[in-house]
Parts: sequence; structure tokens; C-alpha cells
Amino acid sequence: MKLKMMYSFLNSDINIVEKELEDRIHTESLLLRQASLHILQAGGKRIRPVFVLLAGKFGHYDINVIKNVAVGLELIHMASLVHDDVVDDADLRRGKPTIKSKWDNKIAMYTGDYIFALAIELMTEIEKPVAHQILSNAIVELCIGEIEQIKDKYRFDQHLKDYLRRIKRKTALLIAVSCQLGAIAAGVDKDTHKKLFRFGYYVGMSFQITDDILDFTATEKELGKPAGSDLIQGNITLPVLYAMENPELKNKIQTVHENMDPTELKSIIQMIKDSGAIERSTKMSDLYLDKALQVLNELPENKAKKTLRDIAKFIGKRKY
Amino acid sequence: MKLKMMYSFLNSDINIVEKELEDRIHTESLLLRQASLHILQAGGKRIRPVFVLLAGKFGHYDINVIKNVAVGLELIHMASLVHDDVVDDADLRRGKPTIKSKWDNKIAMYTGDYIFALAIELMTEIEKPVAHQILSNAIVELCIGEIEQIKDKYRFDQHLKDYLRRIKRKTALLIAVSCQLGAIAAGVDKDTHKKLFRFGYYVGMSFQITDDILDFTATEKELGKPAGSDLIQGNITLPVLYAMENPELKNKIQTVHENMDPTELKSIIQMIKDSGAIERSTKMSDLYLDKALQVLNELPENKAKKTLRDIAKFIGKRKY
Repeated sequence: MKLKMMYSFLNSDINIVEKELEDRIHTESLLLRQASLHILQAGGKRIRPVFVLLAGKFGHYDINVIKNVAVGLELIHMASLVHDDVVDDADLRRGKPTIKSKWDNKIAMYTGDYIFALAIELMTEIEKPVAHQILSNAIVELCIGEIEQIKDKYRFDQHLKDYLRRIKRKTALLIAVSCQLGAIAAGVDKDTHKKLFRFGYYVGMSFQITDDILDFTATEKELGKPAGSDLIQGNITLPVLYAMENPELKNKIQTVHENMDPTELKSIIQMIKDSGAIERSTKMSDLYLDKALQVLNELPENKAKKTLRDIAKFIGKRKY
Repeated sequence: MKLKMMYSFLNSDINIVEKELEDRIHTESLLLRQASLHILQAGGKRIRPVFVLLAGKFGHYDINVIKNVAVGLELIHMASLVHDDVVDDADLRRGKPTIKSKWDNKIAMYTGDYIFALAIELMTEIEKPVAHQILSNAIVELCIGEIEQIKDKYRFDQHLKDYLRRIKRKTALLIAVSCQLGAIAAGVDKDTHKKLFRFGYYVGMSFQITDDILDFTATEKELGKPAGSDLIQGNITLPVLYAMENPELKNKIQTVHENMDPTELKSIIQMIKDSGAIERSTKMSDLYLDKALQVLNELPENKAKKTLRDIAKFIGKRKY
């Protein structure tokens, strides 16, 4: 089953969110409008808005309130992608030119700033101080994660806990907060929104580990960028960490650098795949997925819960 | 009289703000801590915190509440400086190496993001939704101003209103909001905090025009960067706009480019100074200053009001 089919009952609300996204980035600055629309139209799974809406179903669901949270979270995600592409020097995102490649790094930087500021502006419409505290704290952590990722590039002596902390900050927290804030905006009790936070956190961890596996196992067409992109940029992901437990392979992997010969890179990727690192990483992803499903079991039965379960399984086990 | 002497009665509170600034940027990420401390210790006038505190004196002044607003506003200003230096490719700020020159553009980008996120996090402690709406709206405008400034570089056919709108967004709004939020945090009535907003706006306009004049009239030592830096980077400021009313001078100015011969640049700067453009710009700055003082007259008499008057006069007429 395709991801979108899983939440087809939300379609009209997703469309409202999509329309709101477009309306919100409208500005009198033509340049800013074009750059923002560019990243918006590059698409994406809109998985954060979906989590916001589904979590909202555990309380008093009002699309006119909750859409602001959904749009805000997606904008924060988009802003972080724009800045990511500057740092990664990426020319393509989902097979389309990035803002930094279509315009330049400076435009990309301020477009990211602008989208981020818009998100904050939008969220102020939720008049619940706790929501702002949760969100702003997650953004601070996200920034720390981004800086740590730069610092940790090509650092081959790092540990599993460095990796886990990094993906927590970079990915899992924002998904966790999407679930939690959707619930808070719908007025659910503390116990429930904390559980939804934990569900989102575990799903986010599984999601990022899967993403890091796909960097090795998916094709360029599926990824919208060359396979092994993370590795060549010095991002030490879980499969790489596992593979480096073999000293010989570690020596090979440590020779990776940005201008490496593609054939040589390909052979290292193959060695990583042959080392059992992919299977071990998949196990770790499944572990987080199981935890997510366990938390879900503690929540009341409804249609949203069933959908959250389907989505969790899908994004933890997706092939691209 | 020196600026700091004007508000010496606030010294102990300024120290609390300074200490809080340092405490807030503390993070377990060493790299991020160093980069943030670097910009913090580069100093600056801390004029936004001073405005926050003084505006707070019109209401129920509680340093433990108002310090968060003061620190938040200064952090937003710092974040925008860090990103500015990336765009301007600036190696020096206040005579010290910039983050982008000491580390690199990528670190500077995320350090700016981090400081900005910290500011938002801090401001959530003020549980007044209207304060968040005012602030986030100002930040959105600030970002639009930054992008427009890039777009308007070396665009020699722009008008006075383009310039005024740009400096409003880039500078005046944040100073206006500093005054307004200081007042709101101290619980003053709407009429008063709106007046303080207007005061700050006019002061901010006068401040930026003065800044743009000083780029031509101050020495490299006073500026901490070479004179004419704005012009050579293609920033069309008020003195340039006035000078370009002379067609012959406009032709000369249009030849300015980034790698221009310093002697040639010097001669163009001298022509701008000889054209009467500086005097006319000073008049415009004085006009805004007068408006600021008029608004101030409508506010109740107190020590803070006297100080705001002194500071306004100082920063509108400062020589460096």
C-alpha cells in the first residue's frame, strides 16, 4: 500500500494544509517568493503535517486551529532542508535543483531564515505557552545537531551514541514534536501528548536509520541523488559505524574523501553492504519501530491510531 | 557625554543582562559555544537591551522578567549580524575577525540559526501572546529586508522609498520592537507601548542613516572596517542616492564594482562627500530624530524618558 493511501481519509485536510503553505510563503519580495515556492513545490512526503493531524484526532480536532501547527512544522522542516543544502553543497534535492544551486548560498541562507521566521510567526497563533516552549527547545536542539554533524564529518573514531544523539536532534525530535503539538493543539491531556511525543521520537529514529540505510541500498533514481552521498560527504551513519568494527574495512573507509574516484567509492560501498552492516542497521531500525508500536498500544483505539501504526511500519520499512 | 554614562543608573541591570547572555549561549557543543561566545565578546553597544530596560521603566519594572526580553532582542540582533557577515563576505566586525572568517560560512550559518533559536526559546518565557506576534512579525520583516538588500545591490536606479523601506526592515523595526516589548513585559497600556514603538522606529531610522553617513565620513579605525565598505559592496545608501541626482556623478558611481582600484574608489567617495549628499542625509536623519523626540514628549515624565531623549540625540548625531 502506498503511503498516501494510508491517510486518504485526511485528504481534504491535507489539501487545506497545502493551500495554507502556499498562502503563507506569499510575500511582496518576488525573489523570496520564488525561492520559497521552489522548495515548497519540490514536494516531499509532508509527513510532519500528517503526524500533526493524526495526533490531533486524539482530542478536539479543529482543522482551522490544527492547520497552523501542521504548516508551522512543515515550514521549519523546509527551512532546515534549505540550510542543509548549503552546508552539504547539494545541487539536487528530490531530483530538482536546490535553492543554493538555482540562486546561490546567500539567497538560500536568507530564504531559510525567512521560512523559519514565518513558521515562528504562524505558531504564535496557538496561544498555549507550553507549545512554544516545546517547539523552540526542539529547534535549539536541531541547530546543535546540525553543528555537531559538521564537526563530526570525516571523524572516523566516533561512537554509536554520537550517531544516535545526532539523529535524535536532526530528525527524531521534530517528528516527536509534530505528534505532541498536534495533540496539544487539540487539547489532549498531558499523559497522552507525552505518549505521542515518544511515539514520534521512536518513529523518527527508525525513519532516519532507514534513510541512512537507503543511502547505500537504493538507486540514484530512487534517491534523487547519487548513492553513497552521505559517505562521500563524511557523514558517518549507522551502516558505516557497524562496518568499521572490521579493522580492515575501517582502514578502507578512512580513505574516503570528497574528490574520491567513483569506482573506488563504489567498491567501498559494496564492501560495506557485504559486511552485514546493512542487516544490523535494519535490526536497529526495527527495534525503534517496535518501541513506537508499543507506545501506540497504550493509546485509545481509533482510526488515527490504526493509521499511525500503518505509517510507522511503512516509513520504518520503506524501500526508498 | 559618553553613551554608557547616560544610563549608568542601569549598570547593575545591564550587568545582569550581560551575564544572562553568556549563560544562555552555553551549550554542550564546544564548537557552537566558541563561535557564539566569539560574537558575544566582540561587544557592541547593547543598545537594544538598553531600550528594552528603559521602556520597561514606564510600567512595573521587574528585572527578572524584563531581562529575558532584553537578552532575546540582543540575541536576535547578534544572529542577524552573523548571517550578515556571511552575505557581505566580511572578515572583520568591530575590528575583530567574523565567525565566517575565523571558522567558515557553514559554521556561521548554523551559529546564527542557533542563536536565533535560543532567542525564540527565551522569549517563550514571556507568556503574552501579543509579544510573540509582534516579535515574530518583526523577524519576518527583517528577513525580507535582508533578501531585498541582496536583490538591490548595485541596482543604481532605485528610489528613496526603496532605501527607507529597506532600513526600516533591516534596522528600525527591531529597535522599535525592543522599546515596545520592554513596555509590554512591564505591563504598560496599549497607547504607551505603541508610542514607544514609534519612538524606537524613528530613532532606528535616524540611527541607520547616521550609520550610512559614517561609512563615508568616519575613519577605518573608527569603523573597524575600511571606509566606503557599503558602497564597494553595492549597498546603495542615502548619501549615494542623493549624490546620484547629479547625472555626471551617477555615471561615475555606476562604475563601482567589488574589485575596484582603491584610489579610484577613494576619488568617488570624495566626490560624494563634496556633492552635498552628506549634509542632506544628515538633515534626513535629524528629521527622524525630531519625530522621535516629539513622540517622547507625549509620554509621562520620568528618569527613563530623559535618558531615552539623551540616547536618541546621541545615536542620531554620533560621530562613529
